[in-house]
Amino acid sequence: MNSVVPGANPYETGLDACAANYVPLSPLSLLARAAAVYPERVACIHGPVRTSYRDLFARCRRLASALRARGIRQGDTVAVMAPNVPALLEAHYGVPAAGAVLNALNVRLDPATVAFILDHSEAKVLIADRTFSSVVKPALASAKVRPLVIDIDDPLGPEGERLGAITYEDLLATGDPAGPWTMPDDEWRAISLNYTSGTTGNPKGVVYHHRGAYLEALGGALAWGLRDHPVFLWTLPMFHCNGWTMPWAMSVVAGTHVCLRKVDPALVFATIVEHRVTHMAGAPIVLNMLANAPAAAKRTFDRTIEVATGGASPPAAIIAAMAAMGFRITHLYGLTETYGPATICAWQEKWNDLDPAGRAAMTARQGVHYPTQEDLMVADPATLVPVPSDGATLGEVCLRGNTVMKGYLKNPKATAEAFAGGWFHTGDLAVRHGDGYIEVKDRSKDIIISGGENISTIEVESALYHHPAVLEAAVVARPDEKWGETPCAFVALKDGARADGAELQRFCRERLAHFKVPRTFVFGPLPKTSTGKIQKYVLRERAKGVDP
Amino acid sequence: MNSVVPGANPYETGLDACAANYVPLSPLSLLARAAAVYPERVACIHGPVRTSYRDLFARCRRLASALRARGIRQGDTVAVMAPNVPALLEAHYGVPAAGAVLNALNVRLDPATVAFILDHSEAKVLIADRTFSSVVKPALASAKVRPLVIDIDDPLGPEGERLGAITYEDLLATGDPAGPWTMPDDEWRAISLNYTSGTTGNPKGVVYHHRGAYLEALGGALAWGLRDHPVFLWTLPMFHCNGWTMPWAMSVVAGTHVCLRKVDPALVFATIVEHRVTHMAGAPIVLNMLANAPAAAKRTFDRTIEVATGGASPPAAIIAAMAAMGFRITHLYGLTETYGPATICAWQEKWNDLDPAGRAAMTARQGVHYPTQEDLMVADPATLVPVPSDGATLGEVCLRGNTVMKGYLKNPKATAEAFAGGWFHTGDLAVRHGDGYIEVKDRSKDIIISGGENISTIEVESALYHHPAVLEAAVVARPDEKWGETPCAFVALKDGARADGAELQRFCRERLAHFKVPRTFVFGPLPKTSTGKIQKYVLRERAKGVDP
Repeated sequence: MNSVVPGANPYETGLDACAANYVPLSPLSLLARAAAVYPERVACIHGPVRTSYRDLFARCRRLASALRARGIRQGDTVAVMAPNVPALLEAHYGVPAAGAVLNALNVRLDPATVAFILDHSEAKVLIADRTFSSVVKPALASAKVRPLVIDIDDPLGPEGERLGAITYEDLLATGDPAGPWTMPDDEWRAISLNYTSGTTGNPKGVVYHHRGAYLEALGGALAWGLRDHPVFLWTLPMFHCNGWTMPWAMSVVAGTHVCLRKVDPALVFATIVEHRVTHMAGAPIVLNMLANAPAAAKRTFDRTIEVATGGASPPAAIIAAMAAMGFRITHLYGLTETYGPATICAWQEKWNDLDPAGRAAMTARQGVHYPTQEDLMVADPATLVPVPSDGATLGEVCLRGNTVMKGYLKNPKATAEAFAGGWFHTGDLAVRHGDGYIEVKDRSKDIIISGGENISTIEVESALYHHPAVLEAAVVARPDEKWGETPCAFVALKDGARADGAELQRFCRERLAHFKVPRTFVFGPLPKTSTGKIQKYVLRERAKGVDP
Repeated sequence: MNSVVPGANPYETGLDACAANYVPLSPLSLLARAAAVYPERVACIHGPVRTSYRDLFARCRRLASALRARGIRQGDTVAVMAPNVPALLEAHYGVPAAGAVLNALNVRLDPATVAFILDHSEAKVLIADRTFSSVVKPALASAKVRPLVIDIDDPLGPEGERLGAITYEDLLATGDPAGPWTMPDDEWRAISLNYTSGTTGNPKGVVYHHRGAYLEALGGALAWGLRDHPVFLWTLPMFHCNGWTMPWAMSVVAGTHVCLRKVDPALVFATIVEHRVTHMAGAPIVLNMLANAPAAAKRTFDRTIEVATGGASPPAAIIAAMAAMGFRITHLYGLTETYGPATICAWQEKWNDLDPAGRAAMTARQGVHYPTQEDLMVADPATLVPVPSDGATLGEVCLRGNTVMKGYLKNPKATAEAFAGGWFHTGDLAVRHGDGYIEVKDRSKDIIISGGENISTIEVESALYHHPAVLEAAVVARPDEKWGETPCAFVALKDGARADGAELQRFCRERLAHFKVPRTFVFGPLPKTSTGKIQKYVLRERAKGVDP
């Protein structure tokens, strides 16, 4: 006791962090443990290939050591352009184990955007599936950087030109399956980079760190109540917010990843049955595809399949349709900036007493903050004063916690704006209900103001989705001399179904206040982003040319 | 981009932590979320009193503000001497929310030790259940510190003198139910202090921090596969390693705490039925009590009750007996220094094919590192070279990770020794099996060396527990001129059961190598610590006087 300074706080004296009691939080720990505890369990299924956790760990160590041998160092960017294949899953571990940062590219981007991203991220390596060579080749030709190109030559993929000096498998063959598994020296180090889809201007590079990725992975396992060994079907793009951190979360529970190059409803149903899938995730568009699949493609299950959805608000009608097919929907909400899910519509026991439509209305809300997200509020974006929990007053959704991004790469101005006042500003408008659950009404830029009244386009779309003929619906503002703006609906009908504007207008009048009912209807397929989001900015442009 | 220094690592530039994306990890977040999401769920049951999460949160805020109003500041110690009652549960949140450090005292300590601890921890407040006034009063009289004394006046407790100026409930009445919920400014801040039982010399004060408590709580929820709303019966002393962090872990899943002042088998069985308990925990001694309870006290269940055990190796015979009664045993292992559980005997699917005895033998092992513990090895304590995974070579269990203590309070020498070489040295000797699972054979100081051969006292005890007449058994070294040491067994028989030394010796010979069989047997009740551990140091002294 003589070594302690009198008067000093004894709890802060001689009790520093050391190697025994402090380890930077990192998803790298999760795979190491899964491989140690469950070496023989199947970590990954891709067509006929099954990879155990022991072998997945060895392959990731091969990747890390092979990248290091080619000069990759801390802070270098390794880009990957691939569908949901094992190489992309392995990159989630092998790239950060080499100290580098994973940039999973949106596979539906055009060459110019890919070139912009490669340059902006200063990519040192590009691992690309041959399928995308027609995009990657011109992107490389116009980019300033000259990354090492590695081809993923997937036997399950369609043909495509080889662009690189080496294939992914040959690269792995040069690696060391027992190579070092190097933890970050600081949990604040970047682990990955995800570009926003950037509907206006250049995409922004959202940087994740090891600490946030680890915590979001644990949060995902807790939010979903995952127990040992779930079987996760990859209907969610792995490039989208690092697949909501599921590539890492599955290691927490030594689950099995079932890869899927393409979301084809018949294949999804068959795969669920074949591999006894327990969990899957996807945007509402994926749910819509499954709910509206031809009867011949559908299958029945002897159990309930858990499906997490997010990225857009799932219409209650789709939630109800999926529930009827044996899927239990959990509604998550988040953004690229929040590692994917930041809220969950946590189930309340009293909802068990509701009818299916009542339940669907509850679960269509975005809910409460995620277990590992610190806090959530709906507030005036300028004053940060929370709105009353009245289910009516609009405010901006603001989030705060360890699973909010590190910031935007090389964009301190956008970072500072996003974090103004110590909260992350989502740009989404919502109300807060009396039970504390939030309900997103619209993106700030999507809201329609007609005669001084706010119209939530999501509310109008939700009404349209209840019409039996409607497959997809999107509502945007159309400039109007008298009202300022009026709602314009773009609608895709189901195969063989028929409905016209007058019919849909009448249908909406029964469900919506008069001023919210679309004045104009346009029928036909809807433009979508690569992650399945309807491109409202395209529709807003189109709406300008629509006659009343 | 002009604002970025050329050549600097862009991932480390302009991407610092701020209030939006960094929050110190703390269990305080967990209760705040549970109260926000599930305000009406029952958080705590104590006799006829049920407290919702909304009210638990308000009571903890009252406690925090009342302590602050009495001058409690960051780094102050608040001691609590209580059985498993709501006040102790609330102290797990209210004390750290006041910035202070919770020291839950072992309720079976003698006055001199309590006085030593109050002085060593410089306790500013002592919250004590009236039941313990006969110990607390002399402790306060001999201690140098003069803490504010607060009486817990539990209507469910037996009478006892009031020693304080105010009761706990009156203190809470002075607090603010909407008072600030102050997060630590640093996740490395101390949250609690737990004294080791200290079989030799003074007890050591093990300091936990907010980061470790948060992670261990998440790890517990994950290790146990907890889903929403388990019902946890407090058969484990809450003062023991902060109840293995379960006071915090239950908030992760908004579970219900069922308080219990005393572990009485009949009451335990009745409570399990009454409150539909799903989970409980306790040392093997608790399992033993339940397994050997009179038939009239036992109840049957329509479901499996999850029981975590640890603190000592549960004999396979007890695991099998509990399984037969409808309890599923999960074997955890850890120490005060590791926030309780640091390993788990994680179930492997192939064990399903084993017979009950085979399964019990598997689960009697300490297993693999906990989900949130970083690493585990069995190694030579001097060189830190791991032993081969041969199930035979003895080494010391060494642990490393974020759920290892901050260190020993005011004891830098002991802290440095415990963390030598960057690993926490447990002082337990184990082997590592071919499947990577560890099996603790003995405390370093308990192992018997007879004729140069190591004898695991746990192995010998395990053999004795299989004898139908044996209730409890402890084996220690007895000095022997010829062999150096020989095993001496202390045995408590079941009520009405009969067996003598010759019978037990013959029974052991059938199961153990000849040199491991106890030469001497002593019958009678065994001395135990307050946490139910058999006091081997007492038995070692006794063994010196036993004739061969």
